[in-house]
Order: sequence, then C-alpha cells, then structure tokens
Amino acid sequence: MAAAPAKPAAPFDLAKTPAADWHALDPENTVYLHIPQGRVVIELAPAFAPNHVANIKALVRSHYFDDSFIVRAQDNYVVQWSAPETRKLTAGHDPLKAEFDKLIGAEPFTPLADRDTYAPQVGFSGDFPAARDPKAHRTWLTHCYGMVGAARDEGADTGSGKELYAVIGQSPRNLDRNVTLVGRVVQGIELLSVLPRGTGDLGFYKTDPERTHILKVQMAADLPAADRMPLEVLKTGSPSFQAFVQSRRFRQESWYKYSSGHIGVCNIALPVRLKP
Amino acid sequence: MAAAPAKPAAPFDLAKTPAADWHALDPENTVYLHIPQGRVVIELAPAFAPNHVANIKALVRSHYFDDSFIVRAQDNYVVQWSAPETRKLTAGHDPLKAEFDKLIGAEPFTPLADRDTYAPQVGFSGDFPAARDPKAHRTWLTHCYGMVGAARDEGADTGSGKELYAVIGQSPRNLDRNVTLVGRVVQGIELLSVLPRGTGDLGFYKTDPERTHILKVQMAADLPAADRMPLEVLKTGSPSFQAFVQSRRFRQESWYKYSSGHIGVCNIALPVRLKP
Repeated sequence: MAAAPAKPAAPFDLAKTPAADWHALDPENTVYLHIPQGRVVIELAPAFAPNHVANIKALVRSHYFDDSFIVRAQDNYVVQWSAPETRKLTAGHDPLKAEFDKLIGAEPFTPLADRDTYAPQVGFSGDFPAARDPKAHRTWLTHCYGMVGAARDEGADTGSGKELYAVIGQSPRNLDRNVTLVGRVVQGIELLSVLPRGTGDLGFYKTDPERTHILKVQMAADLPAADRMPLEVLKTGSPSFQAFVQSRRFRQESWYKYSSGHIGVCNIALPVRLKP
Repeated sequence: MAAAPAKPAAPFDLAKTPAADWHALDPENTVYLHIPQGRVVIELAPAFAPNHVANIKALVRSHYFDDSFIVRAQDNYVVQWSAPETRKLTAGHDPLKAEFDKLIGAEPFTPLADRDTYAPQVGFSGDFPAARDPKAHRTWLTHCYGMVGAARDEGADTGSGKELYAVIGQSPRNLDRNVTLVGRVVQGIELLSVLPRGTGDLGFYKTDPERTHILKVQMAADLPAADRMPLEVLKTGSPSFQAFVQSRRFRQESWYKYSSGHIGVCNIALPVRLKP
C-alpha cells in the first residue's frame, strides 16, 4: 500500500480546471430513462460489460423498455426496473453469460493510494469506480452509489440487462463480482433515490399503482444533438482529477477541523457538468 | 491487520440466536421523532457524547422539538431538522463543546478484523459503529447510514444538538471527528431517506411548504410502557454477533458466486427486532 500523498498547498477549484481535462459523454453509450419526475442519464461501460452493453442498446432501440416500470425500491440498497414479464424480446438476447470481472487489459486505470476493505486495489477506469487484483490479473467495476447493474436470478448466467437496478445507499460491495455492472447514473439519481420503498420482500412493490412508470428509454445518439444533455465528465486520467481526489482526502474548507488523509473509492463523486 | 477469519461451516440463522444475545433498547436513551409518515426511533449514544445526549434529552423534555421541521435533504448525504430560529430555549444549552472523539476508556469495543480506508481500527462499541486509533488512544463513532449527528456552524464548538441530521447515503466518513455523533436511527430511516431533495444550497428547502412537519419528539421513557416500541438489538459483544458478521463476510446464500471474505463497518446493519 502506497503512503497517503501529502496535503495540498492550495485549495482546489473545480471551476478553474482546463477544458482539456473534461470529456463529453459518448452519445452512443448514454441512455436516457424518462420517468414522470424527469430524465435519468446513464453512462454505459462497454469496456467491462461489452455483451451486456450491446444487448441493452439493442433492447433500448427496439423500444423494449418503453412503457415499463420501476418495480422495486429497497432502502439503503437498490431501485430496480423492468418491462412486464409478458413482453417479448424483438431484439437482443436473454439470458447472457455473466461479465462479473475480466482479465486486466488495455482499459485505463487510475489507482488510488488509499486502502480498501474489499479489494487489493481500487481506483477509476475511465468514468467508473473499479477494483483490481493484480496477482490474479482480474479487474471489475465496484458497487458504488449510482452504479447500474443487470439483475439476475440464481444462476450466474441468468441476467441480460433487460432488468436493471441502480444503487441508492451505502455501497453494497458484497455484490462486486456477483453481478454484471453495466454503467452508472451520471445525472438524476435523486429522482430514483427518493422513490417510496416497496413493502414486499426485497423492497418489491406489492401493488401495481405503487410502481413508477417509465415512459420511454432512449439512446442519446438517437436524438437530434440539440435534444441531448450536453454533459461532460472530469477525465480520471487528468491532473485535475488527481488534484480533485487530493482535495477530498485533505479538506481545505475551514469548516473541517480534521482530515484522515484518506478517501474511499465510493466516496469520490466523479464531477459531471453541463458543457460550459 | 489480523487475517480474515475462516469461512463458516454452516449458514447463520438470526432467528435461532439465543434471547440472551439481544438487549432491549434503554427507554432513557431512546427518542421518538413523529412525522406525518410515521415514527422514527433514535438510540442515543451517551458513552461517546454525554453532554450532547444530556442536552438533547433536556430539549426533548422541554418540548423544544415539537412542531419543528425537516429543513434539508441532500441526496446521498443527510436529512436535517431543527425548530424555527425564533424559538427560545427553555431548557438545555446552546452551544456546547464538541465531543468529536474521546480517550479510549471503559466503553466496550468489538473490533473487526477487516481493514478500513479511514481509521486504523473499526468495530462496534455497544450498539454503534466506531473507530479507534490505538496509538493515539482515541476512539470515535463513524458516519454510517442512519447515524445521527449534531449539526454545527464554522467553529468546532458551535453545535448543541438542537439541530440534528441523519445520514441517508454512502457513509460520509470524512465527517468523522468533525461532528459530534449523538446516536443512530434504529427504526424508520426509510421515512427520512425518501424525502424530496431540497433544491437550495446543500439540499436546504427553498420554500416552507417543502419542509416535513415534525409533530412532536418524545423520550421513550416518558411514555407508558405499552406505548413504547419494544425493540431489541443484537448485542455486539455476543457470539451471535460474531457469527452474524462472519455470515456477511462469506455469504452462504446460493445466489452468491463470490465472497471477498471482508466486510465494511458501514456495511453491517446491526440487527434490530421487535421483542418476540
């Protein structure tokens, strides 16, 4: 474990970061989920779950998720959505082989010096919190707040992305390597996190009227550019990201009287902004 | 760091734990917060914040919190409540000296073998998640989901318990040793975690109608025994607690395909039940 880096000399100001340290969301990997309360923006993670991501895109483009429902809200855990069980697939596949983890490859990885309870090493890969086991040469995405996964049944290979969930509480890291994570909510998680908790087993709603209606789900790429949310994400390989993380380890605001000098991978909310 | 304990031989069944491994909540340290949606039960932590706890009891018993409001809901962070600023104290004190941490003393401590990002050692002290720095002989409560703290202004000694918050998201451990934690929500956190997020700075509500009304706040001890919630908490010093924690490190349910063998202090939801 590397020693924690030193306290920064000057406060970090996100507004002063260079434009080159931000990147626009790729519309080909951005999903809009429309509920009556507003739009939830999800960034997909093809580097970690290529087959699930391709499948979700096929499902979205075949309108599989239009007129579907949020069927579960379990406190301090997840919100989950799916189409009625009677709906037939007109594109895509179900089920798919699990993509719980993968061999370490060419995907980027910015490690954190901070120790983690669950994994030998944590950090960010592209726009996603991730972990590595260098000895076993494996890497996987981590279940932080806002991460989106493909729900499955008993068997490992029973998910497909046609039923999805988002994390709305303390990071359930025990799910790491047990579910295929497919992306994360980059905007609008607060529309999901406030949904009334279901009173059935595992937070499933007992009655249909309790469910939230999903009006439609779209790929950003399929909308005219003017109708897309022009969101940018701080590049996790950039110097600005390093300075940002350091500012979370050592808080410069005078309100803070103590800093541990450490930060958890799930306590780093990757900065997202509207393109200036 | 101790090695992670071995995988348990048999599944753990909470229903089969002996009655002696549970204890009833102490009504003298149990607060009922009544909102239109229901009752929130808070257990106070006098071992860590004796002055704040005594003050909160004095405030509750002087009806300071009756007819007050939830004034803030910040996503993935906290819900906060307080009386209108014009209300005068008729009992208790404001402000109080901070109780951020304390010398390790006679309070119980059940350490976890698992490593933690923020502290040299974590575990449970009585019914609360806690951390220790053995070298510095200090101990403190940790900001896990449902923990309740005394909001403060810029200065360390500006809180008193007359404004309180509960954690409703990923554990903001950067607040550890920066705020006096006074207890935790043992029942009803889901009534707070679903409140609409405020759209003002830090999640404060911009308008009065957005606030949730707190009808009254009572000490359980001041109610007839028949009107109290007969809640019991698993004793953190008991063999059943050790078995429970181990069952969270190594999940026995066949749904799980992988276990890390580790558990975070904020991922252990201390079991609470109605007295059988």
